[in-house]
Amino acid sequence: MRVINVDLGSRSYRILIGSELLRRVGTECQRLGLRGRCAVISDQNVAPAYGSRCLADLVAAGYEPMLFTVPAGETAKSLKTVGACYDQLAAYRLERGSFIIALGGGVVGDLAGFVAATYLRGVAFVQVPTTLLAQVDSSVGGKVGVNLKAGKNLVGAFFQPRLVVCDLDTLATLPTREFRAGLAEVIKYGIIYDAALFRKLERGLPKLLEREPATLASVVARCCAIKGEVVSQDETESGLRSILNFGHTIGHAIEATAGYGKLLHGEAIAIGQVAAAKLSAKLVGLSEGHVQRITELFERAGLPTATRLNANQRAKLLSAMRRDKKVSDGKIKFVLAKRIGQVVWGQKVPPELIEEVLTAGPSTLNSQLSTLN
Amino acid sequence: MRVINVDLGSRSYRILIGSELLRRVGTECQRLGLRGRCAVISDQNVAPAYGSRCLADLVAAGYEPMLFTVPAGETAKSLKTVGACYDQLAAYRLERGSFIIALGGGVVGDLAGFVAATYLRGVAFVQVPTTLLAQVDSSVGGKVGVNLKAGKNLVGAFFQPRLVVCDLDTLATLPTREFRAGLAEVIKYGIIYDAALFRKLERGLPKLLEREPATLASVVARCCAIKGEVVSQDETESGLRSILNFGHTIGHAIEATAGYGKLLHGEAIAIGQVAAAKLSAKLVGLSEGHVQRITELFERAGLPTATRLNANQRAKLLSAMRRDKKVSDGKIKFVLAKRIGQVVWGQKVPPELIEEVLTAGPSTLNSQLSTLN
Repeated sequence: MRVINVDLGSRSYRILIGSELLRRVGTECQRLGLRGRCAVISDQNVAPAYGSRCLADLVAAGYEPMLFTVPAGETAKSLKTVGACYDQLAAYRLERGSFIIALGGGVVGDLAGFVAATYLRGVAFVQVPTTLLAQVDSSVGGKVGVNLKAGKNLVGAFFQPRLVVCDLDTLATLPTREFRAGLAEVIKYGIIYDAALFRKLERGLPKLLEREPATLASVVARCCAIKGEVVSQDETESGLRSILNFGHTIGHAIEATAGYGKLLHGEAIAIGQVAAAKLSAKLVGLSEGHVQRITELFERAGLPTATRLNANQRAKLLSAMRRDKKVSDGKIKFVLAKRIGQVVWGQKVPPELIEEVLTAGPSTLNSQLSTLN
Repeated sequence: MRVINVDLGSRSYRILIGSELLRRVGTECQRLGLRGRCAVISDQNVAPAYGSRCLADLVAAGYEPMLFTVPAGETAKSLKTVGACYDQLAAYRLERGSFIIALGGGVVGDLAGFVAATYLRGVAFVQVPTTLLAQVDSSVGGKVGVNLKAGKNLVGAFFQPRLVVCDLDTLATLPTREFRAGLAEVIKYGIIYDAALFRKLERGLPKLLEREPATLASVVARCCAIKGEVVSQDETESGLRSILNFGHTIGHAIEATAGYGKLLHGEAIAIGQVAAAKLSAKLVGLSEGHVQRITELFERAGLPTATRLNANQRAKLLSAMRRDKKVSDGKIKFVLAKRIGQVVWGQKVPPELIEEVLTAGPSTLNSQLSTLN
């Protein structure tokens, strides 16, 4: 088992990464001094697969767990589901001293975290992410929330978990599309922070796609360590933390305009990151060679790198971007890459340039050719 | 103008108390460095009376305010209204650097505060309370939230305002019933913290009921100062702050079972405080003389001190109490008074004793007789 510490003073916590960890959730909660009733929030895909294993250990550790299942998919990340969770918790008489466990992917973690942040003005919560995306990204760092029709994650809080348990065994049964979507966040860490990780991914992608356990363990641990380092320096995103949003401004807008659930978050931010790389070439000197390497790595991971939009769809996309949380004084701000492994944030980008990179151009053509090689 | 400082380190703020302060809201926001767009959330009673005055000053100070009106009354303190507010803010493109002003009573303040705490993971907010209850209690201290069907304030956050502006002129037009409901919180401060304030209220109640400006100013300022002192010592209610809940455990349950909106919050906690005084006599030695003085002061203020319940209603009330946020290990905890001006918290009270004091007994009879004198 690998252990990563997220250093946030009195709100510090550990990320556990390894095999057969679902069987240890109860023990680890005991170790933290959590007590009383607990609510496990999961979804209709994950609960049948892992719910009983997780609950059995909680019962063995002396807890009285209650399992509450929400629909699977991004559409569950809504105020309506939040309301349903509150009502269940009230019926179960969850107390301030009780806690909530999020068992599932990013949607479940963000939703259950927001419920935990606001129920009784905040109860303790534990993340048990079961997808690659949730393990490397959304379960760490305390950003919780839900979507509005107007945009993704527009409602939420900063609320740190007390513990994150990444059981790598849960990744074995993950559908291919979900696994690949998680790789979009993995590749992001390479681009924004760690050129060595990026090179390792270029070399080791086949093993990672095969979900080879040692490769998985080392990649998940490295990503969690990077996220922990960034978050501990800037918990509430006044500066540095915004580098984690590389590719997300366009990605979120694609999700909002495509309708939640059509594209997975990882797919949308793969397109967003390639677009951000193209903007980076135009604005902060990212070399064409690096744009190419970035595009190719997403393609090799089986992720989309462009989306066809008509003029009307492009207008909707720009409008969605203007409602992004990162908008300041009406200006859309971007994270851009100077080279692989180094980014700058807070970059204002003219809307016409965004339109330009979203209109399929030469580099999409190139990358399509490259997949034929 | 009187100024009270609430000392909470980097989250400290000022409470301004005086006349004609609605005209200064914009200037005071400028002084805090707030900028950009702002959303004024108010209700259908308050907005027509004071909305334009408040907005005019904001415009004069260079802001672009948007007024959003919610229905008046406790039923508006719901997730549904929260959702409607979010949608309006998204349509108005409120940004992270923008801010929200709550213009109204406790319902508007709690609701708008929760919206501010969660929209874009938190935007600055300013309380402009226009009822006595909101000025002396709910606008100060950062408790924000909404109700569930299962209970009052079950959803919320601790989120401090950046400024509280109490314009005493707004109290002149407050309906008598609302004004009296506010007195229930005023009397509470005397019972829990300040015997001299209690005596002052016993002597000066007629002037206060006439809303004599100097009396109002001094009482509101004293209550805000007490609340500020308590909150700055225990912001998130790990101990001392719970004394502010005197009479609230029963009061909240009465509100939840009577149906929100039937009884005003102040009326419910008047009944709750008299019941808590009776429990205090039985459990921590509050003298019968003090129970009598407490009961009489509420009666003189025109507030209810008992409620007739049948067995079924009493059972519902106890069930609602068990869902209270202060429940721990299934036990209902009370704040009880040893004497006027001094309370103890975290007192476990057997349910049968609660039933006993809620069944109209001798002291209700006494107090009914005393109103005949």
